Amino acid sequence: MMKRYLLAPGPTPVPSEILLSMAAPIIHHRSPDFLPVLDSAKKGLQWLYQTKNDVLILTSTGTGGMVSAVNNFFNQGDKVLVVNGGKFGERWTKICQAYGLRVDEITVEWGYAVRPEEVEDRLRKNRSIKGVFVQASETSTGVYHDIQTLASIVRNYDDTLFIVDAISALVAHDLRTDEWGIDIMVGGSQKGVMLPPGIAFVSVSEKAWQRAETSRMPKFYFNLRKERENLAKNQTNFTSPVTLIIGLNAGLQMLKTEGLENVFKRHEKLANATRKAVQAIGLELYPKESPSNAVTAIMTPPGIDGQAVYKNLREKYGITAAGGQDRAKGKIFRIAHLGYADRFDIITAIAGIEMVLKGMGYPVKLGTGVAVAQELLME
Amino acid sequence: MMKRYLLAPGPTPVPSEILLSMAAPIIHHRSPDFLPVLDSAKKGLQWLYQTKNDVLILTSTGTGGMVSAVNNFFNQGDKVLVVNGGKFGERWTKICQAYGLRVDEITVEWGYAVRPEEVEDRLRKNRSIKGVFVQASETSTGVYHDIQTLASIVRNYDDTLFIVDAISALVAHDLRTDEWGIDIMVGGSQKGVMLPPGIAFVSVSEKAWQRAETSRMPKFYFNLRKERENLAKNQTNFTSPVTLIIGLNAGLQMLKTEGLENVFKRHEKLANATRKAVQAIGLELYPKESPSNAVTAIMTPPGIDGQAVYKNLREKYGITAAGGQDRAKGKIFRIAHLGYADRFDIITAIAGIEMVLKGMGYPVKLGTGVAVAQELLME
Repeated sequence: MMKRYLLAPGPTPVPSEILLSMAAPIIHHRSPDFLPVLDSAKKGLQWLYQTKNDVLILTSTGTGGMVSAVNNFFNQGDKVLVVNGGKFGERWTKICQAYGLRVDEITVEWGYAVRPEEVEDRLRKNRSIKGVFVQASETSTGVYHDIQTLASIVRNYDDTLFIVDAISALVAHDLRTDEWGIDIMVGGSQKGVMLPPGIAFVSVSEKAWQRAETSRMPKFYFNLRKERENLAKNQTNFTSPVTLIIGLNAGLQMLKTEGLENVFKRHEKLANATRKAVQAIGLELYPKESPSNAVTAIMTPPGIDGQAVYKNLREKYGITAAGGQDRAKGKIFRIAHLGYADRFDIITAIAGIEMVLKGMGYPVKLGTGVAVAQELLME
Repeated sequence: MMKRYLLAPGPTPVPSEILLSMAAPIIHHRSPDFLPVLDSAKKGLQWLYQTKNDVLILTSTGTGGMVSAVNNFFNQGDKVLVVNGGKFGERWTKICQAYGLRVDEITVEWGYAVRPEEVEDRLRKNRSIKGVFVQASETSTGVYHDIQTLASIVRNYDDTLFIVDAISALVAHDLRTDEWGIDIMVGGSQKGVMLPPGIAFVSVSEKAWQRAETSRMPKFYFNLRKERENLAKNQTNFTSPVTLIIGLNAGLQMLKTEGLENVFKRHEKLANATRKAVQAIGLELYPKESPSNAVTAIMTPPGIDGQAVYKNLREKYGITAAGGQDRAKGKIFRIAHLGYADRFDIITAIAGIEMVLKGMGYPVKLGTGVAVAQELLME
């Protein structure tokens, strides 16, 4: 028997309580049974998003939510600004280009956060920019972009929407949709809310709804205005993903019981312990600044292949972490501390990393990083 | 305690075996654990579809699958022929129009099947028709369109694709993708394969793949060529809906154990018993011809509101059937016998209908329809 530990940045582990809540008999999405279920999910998402805006629920992966942020609010030829600091920043560019937008890109070196002044500079120089797209947590590099400051800049531009991919940041970071002025924020189920993959969330501000009225792009499946009409009646436009929404309520209830502030503190604490522990065994963090609280990207020492670390963790110890993507492949591995994660997950991860590295000939005194994590995670 | 019975045409009941299979710990979609899971689902869908074509799996409702059949194979301005004989035929038209296709519609009176000669006639007169869209089972009317004959007509036109919405027909009807020549066939999880809502299936013929190369429509989320590349590696383009695919394997295994021919026979037998039983208590079927084996649409007697029958079934007896949609609202109610359905579901439905109608003052001798169903469902 080898027990399995899922420490990847999505899908993340789903608590048995949630998995079993989804094993209840199926209810019909147009029957009165379902209305309070969706009503509860709707209100719970507003709580999590810290918003009075609509938070729509789509049957899709997070990427479907990202697409909906493009095809509902823009027109072909619109100029937009994309912060591209990793694989998911690049995805914003690809989606915008697939829909015929003209993309002005701020290329951020992998491992760094965007400098807000650069965004301000581009906006000042080009008044026709209709939207600014960014990740909160860029999962490929483990960097958190400063959403609060970016929002405070973009909100000065009346014709510019601020669009945040918070798929991996939601729950791990305090993201104040209304207070900061985030127009569109995308979340996904298989991350902080502790659900299986299958649904995406999209919040939409009044400023964005006004823009939606001018969008003439082809839309049918990802039609947010139709979703809004339906949500007002506690329905979705097409067949509701009833089991996932039941699970969502269970997940949101767990988060509510903990309290939002405590949820953020927990993620910060786990992330911090992970960083300090791996540094204690001589490893470098991949982010040079502003590390994410959702996932820690760790550089493998010279001569050691990051993919081999990932593979050994999985095969020798049953720990599913993540390797590097694209240009970071082989250079890094990543440990998530997102959603259903607590201190002993971190201790497991650090212990496993030490054991794998030692097994690969890297000089590590077993327990060094673990002790640091223990110290930081004691009550 | 009121026990609940789900007899609606989707979502349909999910067997506990499947629900519990989906409560297993989450596995990572890019890890080696997942490859055999998706490989099995891929092969199982080919078995169910009776095809050697790729059957792609999308994280969406069935409607997302329908959209993918439009945005991957056509260009703005293309002329297409839509058979519109109900709410879902109308949906084909709406999707095609949303994507800028020029729709030539064959309007079929609700309750009737399209006459294949009419399709042939339109194709002969208009050689520029690039695709013919139809439902197999039109869920809103309970009519089955003759897919085999329609396919035999369309396949004579080299530049015309034959696209079938089989969302509610799959499993209930023998649909021979390769033998008949269906280019694109869409299925959904919450119907015959006995899963919760959340994934769609789309089969694509070689003829359709060739056409896909010429399509320049914006596509990112529903990009079937990318899905094909990924499926070859037992992956999906974005995060795989791992729990639903695990459930799909469980559902397909149940169908395989029964055998495809037996599955179709069971649905035919249940549908036939339903029809004969309701006719025995003096009710008329809504379809005037070619009734579907997935769902039976039943006309309520004069003076009795179809929505009230639906409501009484649910509130007094715990049976969730379906009412009528759009122009059929109030005139009909619908009983599904799709997926996880056996003889005592039919007997329950008929008994419930008799009890509701008698309670509403309709002269029915209790047990009349039930006896007919029993007779037809005896071994």
